[in-house]
Amino acid sequence: MHFLKIAISIAAINILTACQTPPESGQDEQVAANLMQQAKDSTLAFEIVESLTVEVGPRMAGSPEDVKAVNWAMDKLQQLGFNRIYKEPVQVPVWHRGEAKAQVISPYPQNLVITALGGSVATPTQGITAEIVRFDSLAQLKQANPDLISNKIVFIDHATEKSIDGHGYGETVAGRSKGAIEAAKKGAVAVLIRSIGTDHDRMAHTGMMRYSDNVEKIPAAALSIPDANQLNLMLKRSPSINVKLEMSPSTLSDATSYNVIAEVTGSSLADEIVLIGAHLDSWDQGTGAIDDGAGVAIVTAAAKLILDLPQPPKRTIRVVLYAAEEIGLVGGKAYAKAHQHELAKHYIAAESDFGAGKIYQIDVNVAEVAFKPTQQWLSPMTENNIVLGNNQANGGPDVSMLPKQGVPVASLRQDGTDYFDYHHTPNDTLDKIAPKALAQNVAAYAQFAYLMAQSEINLRPIQPETK
Amino acid sequence: MHFLKIAISIAAINILTACQTPPESGQDEQVAANLMQQAKDSTLAFEIVESLTVEVGPRMAGSPEDVKAVNWAMDKLQQLGFNRIYKEPVQVPVWHRGEAKAQVISPYPQNLVITALGGSVATPTQGITAEIVRFDSLAQLKQANPDLISNKIVFIDHATEKSIDGHGYGETVAGRSKGAIEAAKKGAVAVLIRSIGTDHDRMAHTGMMRYSDNVEKIPAAALSIPDANQLNLMLKRSPSINVKLEMSPSTLSDATSYNVIAEVTGSSLADEIVLIGAHLDSWDQGTGAIDDGAGVAIVTAAAKLILDLPQPPKRTIRVVLYAAEEIGLVGGKAYAKAHQHELAKHYIAAESDFGAGKIYQIDVNVAEVAFKPTQQWLSPMTENNIVLGNNQANGGPDVSMLPKQGVPVASLRQDGTDYFDYHHTPNDTLDKIAPKALAQNVAAYAQFAYLMAQSEINLRPIQPETK
Repeated sequence: MHFLKIAISIAAINILTACQTPPESGQDEQVAANLMQQAKDSTLAFEIVESLTVEVGPRMAGSPEDVKAVNWAMDKLQQLGFNRIYKEPVQVPVWHRGEAKAQVISPYPQNLVITALGGSVATPTQGITAEIVRFDSLAQLKQANPDLISNKIVFIDHATEKSIDGHGYGETVAGRSKGAIEAAKKGAVAVLIRSIGTDHDRMAHTGMMRYSDNVEKIPAAALSIPDANQLNLMLKRSPSINVKLEMSPSTLSDATSYNVIAEVTGSSLADEIVLIGAHLDSWDQGTGAIDDGAGVAIVTAAAKLILDLPQPPKRTIRVVLYAAEEIGLVGGKAYAKAHQHELAKHYIAAESDFGAGKIYQIDVNVAEVAFKPTQQWLSPMTENNIVLGNNQANGGPDVSMLPKQGVPVASLRQDGTDYFDYHHTPNDTLDKIAPKALAQNVAAYAQFAYLMAQSEINLRPIQPETK
Repeated sequence: MHFLKIAISIAAINILTACQTPPESGQDEQVAANLMQQAKDSTLAFEIVESLTVEVGPRMAGSPEDVKAVNWAMDKLQQLGFNRIYKEPVQVPVWHRGEAKAQVISPYPQNLVITALGGSVATPTQGITAEIVRFDSLAQLKQANPDLISNKIVFIDHATEKSIDGHGYGETVAGRSKGAIEAAKKGAVAVLIRSIGTDHDRMAHTGMMRYSDNVEKIPAAALSIPDANQLNLMLKRSPSINVKLEMSPSTLSDATSYNVIAEVTGSSLADEIVLIGAHLDSWDQGTGAIDDGAGVAIVTAAAKLILDLPQPPKRTIRVVLYAAEEIGLVGGKAYAKAHQHELAKHYIAAESDFGAGKIYQIDVNVAEVAFKPTQQWLSPMTENNIVLGNNQANGGPDVSMLPKQGVPVASLRQDGTDYFDYHHTPNDTLDKIAPKALAQNVAAYAQFAYLMAQSEINLRPIQPETK
């Protein structure tokens, strides 16, 4: 009730604000239109992601390559001439992939393509050889009789649906993150999952998995999709398929990585922040082009366009290149903690972390009464083929914890139809990025950041957490 | 001149034959039409290729898996009830892939995805580390100054064009087969080629390479296409890219493999042979689904349809599943030698070895005067969306040596647009085969084999060798 009263009174102010068209609005729209055109004509973002993926390549959190990536980012942001450039230490767990081999031992001996899931323990040196027991999904595994599972290798065979918004990933990824826990609870010796991916390539998709302190830690790996199919065809022929797994991942000592930050200093509202982020770390199998070199390039190039405007924006544009997203949003959490004191001054935040497909919609999470005015204020983005969406954004992985602290966020929705074809595989390479689509993203982030920096709408208080 | 006179006199006979429409022709056409429909309704070919790829999997010539493949083929042909089933020994060289690693050492340290070319020697245990020198093509390498190449790793960067008939492969494959010889002649320590492929997957395409007795044998490997691109982007930044190669392939003792043969015994012309073939061996990276499990399935299923006819065909249909095609047409050459005495009785031969794409054209290599009558005789195939093509067929790899010995051949041209996306990579798996297209192939081979078995056209003497 208390909340509702505040909301209503703020609504009144917001409506007032929305009706008071700011004097500079026509000018802001013109600047936004120019930014869009400049972004589409610019090759800067592609040059940035090419530079990162070629000169640094893969950059697992806490690895020597991650150190190089941080140095690369500091250098690149310096070269681009941002007003303020700094890095903030983040303690990160370090995991090394090692080797992963799987072979069917009987009755149809042959190799299977697998990769370890991030955080997995190793098998004993002699490997683990056991019979396969298959489940349609994590849910089916949870319901299964432990007698069927004890001393076996659990195979979670949940296929990921392809879609523009990647919702299929949300439906299957729990098998990756929690499969080892649920399998071990019932006595399994290892877990193999059908890759959380939408391709038909013989490459396994890695990604983070978890253990529980009071459940035995068993090795966890992903099969490529053709190999998951192959295992099914074998099970159709024989109930007893025996597989040998040999995996040598290792967890090393924690290391220091960094959130790398660059700013375009605002003018009249310099202490208020429009945050656009991406993550600098990547998995090790590809070169981290779509995940998330593209995001790094998009937000950096967008901010650079604003930096080069004749007049600085009112609010400060802060580019945050997060550390260690892949292994558990470590940089995002560290940022939220380190910037606790100024989260109230974060006007809005958005992260680019869904590849390099075109943006088709912008969602926000702002005060209900501010939603329509915000949409109206962002309407120049529709010129870039972007639909004004809903008020249920989560903002992206590394900013997803900010709404709980009252920070408004936006999600610039990218076409992710092909994203899970390449995600977390060796195929995440530069050739998967279409330069035109990348430039459209830059245009969107430049317009979004600039317009938000100029806005006079009060975006707070945001709604209680939406799903 | 002598030849011409004979050709003219035979032409007269052929014209006569062509005009004498055989009494059973209407009946043959009806049988051919039924075969097409039965083939399109049948799932037998897909079942065969599924069985081979799942139960045997990869089957490198001379490997233990090759032995299994031969046993699988003998069993399968027995189950299908062919009239005569036998195998003929073929001595095959045996090569084992081992491991292959490449990493850029400086200035942009990172791993590259490579695979050894078939037949390559190993590197020393400590690897080979050297600077890269890049060439557009084998032709450019041949023209280059040896001073530029000495002690370096030659990188042949010739991109393969995508096309329905796969002609791009013919333009680039010499870099694979002869690159090591030409590079070693000029003092190179190893050779890396851009994969002979048309995909953008981070998988390297293997395939056979050669050495020359009087030229030093240097290790040879293929880079995946994204990795070849990556190397180019590095070379754009720095003239001196240093790469370390570690490869452990080995050549073992020769082994015995087998050409596996099954027949549908003919009636009135049982000693005359219509040969339809495919090769049973595969590379080891994939499961040999498109190369050449599909071909094995197509010709076997086609012959089975003819076997099940109420009346046997006039000529004998001989299915030949060749050994060791991949490593140099070893089975094809052995067959030609072992069957020297009856090559004169080979009415026509054709091999299916271009994947599982639909057949769009049939070419032949028959006597010039027999060409039009043959096309007319094969015209029921046009009902299966197949164009009657030219008289310049080579028949396919394992029968390509037969025209020199006077044997007419046919090439049933498949749509190979995607073939070189998967060819010789781990991606050569069952999911790349479209069941409907496979069935269309079976229909084509069934019609072709049956009609040729019934034909009264004299196909000989074939033309002097065409290109």
